[in-house]
Amino acid sequence: MEILGKQFIDGKRSEESGTRFCSLDAATGEPLEYEFFVATDAEISRAAATAGAAFTIYRKSGLEERAQFLEAIAEEIDSLDDRFVQIVMRETGLPEPRIRGERLRTSNQLRLFSAVVRRGDFLGARIDTALPDRQPLPRPDIRQYRIGTGPVAVFGAANFPLAFSVAGGDTASALAAGCPVVVKAHSAHPTTSELVACAVVRAVERSGVPKGVFAMLFGDNAGAALVRCPEIKAVGFTGSLAGGRALSEIAAARPEPIPVFAEMSSVNPVILLPGALRERGSVIASGLAASVTLGAGQFCTNPGLVIGIAGEPFDTFCQMLSLEIMSRPPLVMLSRPILLNYQEGIRRLSQLSGMELLGGAITEGDRAAACLFRAPPELLRCETRPLEDEVFGPVTVLVAVKDLQELREIIPDLGGHLAAGLFAAASELSDAGPIVELLETRVGRVILNEFPTGVEVCDAMTHGGPFPATSDSRCTSVGTLAIDRFLRPVCYQGYPDIMLPPALQDANPYGLLRLVNGKWSAGGIRLADDKHEIGRH
Amino acid sequence: MEILGKQFIDGKRSEESGTRFCSLDAATGEPLEYEFFVATDAEISRAAATAGAAFTIYRKSGLEERAQFLEAIAEEIDSLDDRFVQIVMRETGLPEPRIRGERLRTSNQLRLFSAVVRRGDFLGARIDTALPDRQPLPRPDIRQYRIGTGPVAVFGAANFPLAFSVAGGDTASALAAGCPVVVKAHSAHPTTSELVACAVVRAVERSGVPKGVFAMLFGDNAGAALVRCPEIKAVGFTGSLAGGRALSEIAAARPEPIPVFAEMSSVNPVILLPGALRERGSVIASGLAASVTLGAGQFCTNPGLVIGIAGEPFDTFCQMLSLEIMSRPPLVMLSRPILLNYQEGIRRLSQLSGMELLGGAITEGDRAAACLFRAPPELLRCETRPLEDEVFGPVTVLVAVKDLQELREIIPDLGGHLAAGLFAAASELSDAGPIVELLETRVGRVILNEFPTGVEVCDAMTHGGPFPATSDSRCTSVGTLAIDRFLRPVCYQGYPDIMLPPALQDANPYGLLRLVNGKWSAGGIRLADDKHEIGRH
Repeated sequence: MEILGKQFIDGKRSEESGTRFCSLDAATGEPLEYEFFVATDAEISRAAATAGAAFTIYRKSGLEERAQFLEAIAEEIDSLDDRFVQIVMRETGLPEPRIRGERLRTSNQLRLFSAVVRRGDFLGARIDTALPDRQPLPRPDIRQYRIGTGPVAVFGAANFPLAFSVAGGDTASALAAGCPVVVKAHSAHPTTSELVACAVVRAVERSGVPKGVFAMLFGDNAGAALVRCPEIKAVGFTGSLAGGRALSEIAAARPEPIPVFAEMSSVNPVILLPGALRERGSVIASGLAASVTLGAGQFCTNPGLVIGIAGEPFDTFCQMLSLEIMSRPPLVMLSRPILLNYQEGIRRLSQLSGMELLGGAITEGDRAAACLFRAPPELLRCETRPLEDEVFGPVTVLVAVKDLQELREIIPDLGGHLAAGLFAAASELSDAGPIVELLETRVGRVILNEFPTGVEVCDAMTHGGPFPATSDSRCTSVGTLAIDRFLRPVCYQGYPDIMLPPALQDANPYGLLRLVNGKWSAGGIRLADDKHEIGRH
Repeated sequence: MEILGKQFIDGKRSEESGTRFCSLDAATGEPLEYEFFVATDAEISRAAATAGAAFTIYRKSGLEERAQFLEAIAEEIDSLDDRFVQIVMRETGLPEPRIRGERLRTSNQLRLFSAVVRRGDFLGARIDTALPDRQPLPRPDIRQYRIGTGPVAVFGAANFPLAFSVAGGDTASALAAGCPVVVKAHSAHPTTSELVACAVVRAVERSGVPKGVFAMLFGDNAGAALVRCPEIKAVGFTGSLAGGRALSEIAAARPEPIPVFAEMSSVNPVILLPGALRERGSVIASGLAASVTLGAGQFCTNPGLVIGIAGEPFDTFCQMLSLEIMSRPPLVMLSRPILLNYQEGIRRLSQLSGMELLGGAITEGDRAAACLFRAPPELLRCETRPLEDEVFGPVTVLVAVKDLQELREIIPDLGGHLAAGLFAAASELSDAGPIVELLETRVGRVILNEFPTGVEVCDAMTHGGPFPATSDSRCTSVGTLAIDRFLRPVCYQGYPDIMLPPALQDANPYGLLRLVNGKWSAGGIRLADDKHEIGRH
């Protein structure tokens, strides 16, 4: 398990640059023993070009072949040894159980996409058969399915070094869609990235897919150059609002603009109705404290804004939560820059007019202290949305509005978020309904009586939401619907059966569920023989 | 049928501006008797605001209610009388049969979307039921479906004054998705637009949907201001590349960027293999001439580039096509600006190095003469793609490449187009296969042995393609998949059945096909009773 620190291009390793950078220990900020070459422009172009060449072959891979490739990656990731776990721990500061759990989540995510590939419904097969006798004009035979859009540039996230990184959700969904991937390795965990990339490369070799299907580049300048490469047709990104917007601008300014699927900024508001607080306020307080501080608060779905109704139940809850937050020990963050950003964010919050520090401390140490603020409700109505400017880390802000009426008024003015939680007692369901209807226009997921942290990887998950949560609210970056980002419909008109892709052939060899003449069918199609003639027009 | 020329806002008519413009006769360029008030900024804001307010109600409309609303619009459009047809003829220069045909296409398109609404699969219902005993963590109950993104700004096309305008495909798909529509009336057919808008308003009144569900604004400056309104959440546009890019830039620069679905520029290459030309060259020549000159060549799918293999069959074909094109009479275009653009485009083509005029004439008259050019193959390899710069009108350019090898080399370098045609004899199928595989990465629709003009409105149609054909190749603007543009997934976690939208309730009251625990099912779900408890976490 030697760490070479070189680019991964076309199944080979490449180091053309004289510039290197070090991996750092998350807890101390000190350099680890590994060095990484910064990708040159020539290397970036070559990675994109080989991905473009690989696309022409890989996109035509059979469903079974593609599913097995994803499973092979999953197996290789499961096989990474204890030394790998130790390295991820040092680079990210995350504890061992979290890393082992995230590794399983990553390989299971790949297996879930292999099931999606085998199911085949992502192909979106639709068939309208010819109506030669229709008046005033005959209808030709028209068939549609979806193909991969082309090579995808993937920007991993710092906070999920496995599940949202080299072989994470963006990579899994792009490969499932038939798109090669060029990863820009996150500089906060380059060693982790190299070891996972080696696992992917082993799977590529075992599976016999083109070597250009996977590439990985080191160095922070590689990102912008990669997005500019003409072979790249889409971008998957998880990170800051500034980063996502910068990539979106680069992508839009290309001669051929491409979509950027950026998952960016979210404070995931949690709304607490008084009945729920009366019934189980202390359980909610300890649950919320756990959610806020889980993984040092470094989750996209961290609840950073908690809204209640002014009154005794909410005040009591604030006290309970304050005790909970104060009892949490300071935590190691993923990297020094993230720690400094957190401390800066805490200072910014503390300086907002009327803010009160209820728990925790504004410290400058090398660990992140959990913080709890209470804000005046006026800040919710401030046009710049100061309470919705995400502070990445273990902090949350409590606000009490006057009543349900004010609550319903402020929700439509919230920015876009990934998720929202709503706590209600059984007796408050009639109040909860209208609140959910408002919340669902501002977020991608509305959770009842649970916290937003914990994003299940499944068919029904939405990890997305209106801007600035993401750059495209019509998508999700977690769950099987993520594959839709990298597919586009292509239509075949007037084809003989033999020239159609298998997904659209009369016999339905894949056994797909298809929309045939306006009805869903998993069977084949019977047509008059002359359908198979060519050139009769 | 009085023409008021006022804005349509919230079911009322509004004229706040002192500025008016006239409708023009397409054939003469002379003013008709109708005048239109230019929308003021206040009117534009009000139209968007009422659409935003209507969205909160309309998005929750039941499937049957929404389907009946679409059918009511269809009926009202079918009921437009002969005077309407006469006005459209004068404003657009299109012949009566075309207008009557397009009207039927428009109302049938609305009916097709009402069928989509009733089928309900656009909701994309997905359910993953709770796994309380799963290790290491239980899975909560997670359910997803798609809701409308919000009010849509629709920019109609000049060339389909009914089917791609006020109540055209963008409007029909947005309304079907549950999104209100604010139309920017095309200034080339404002009277037509007013009469269709009146029909939509009658349908709104009959159906009892909120009046803000439909609005329409006059005046070319209204477009940019409308896209900037915060309530607008998506844009549907059909028109020029410059227009589409300008709107995309405005939309991306908003505090909350929104998607623009622009269908823009395409020359729809047609490829002719020698065997097909040998077998039926004269039939293809007359068919191609008809396709190029159909509707004065004013189709998005007009074949503007014809590529063959050098040799006798192609040379003979060029001669036949030249005779066909020369026999066509000059044609009235949709408007004076479009005519002038066409004449300018013809001049530009004629000045390209090595261009030969094979038929037609470069005239300055008040009608468009059909034109046929032959270009040297070098122009296909030119990086600026001069042959792919769409000239909107009855013109096409012939090019012969050396052989199949050169053909396969040039296709991947083509820009994005809406459609491509490929003509092959039965004996050429083995050559055709690899060509189709190349073409499908450059276009949205590949047609065998037919011309690209004629876009069937059905489930399997793709009227889209890579940039610059559209701003987003993952979408179509014709066919039922167009509804996907205006939907986004929302996920409900941990809900009691009674609080879920009907589409996601256990009993499946709409009888939808749903993805339940990874399997497609049209039935209901049986769960243990405790699933219906609330607050057990």
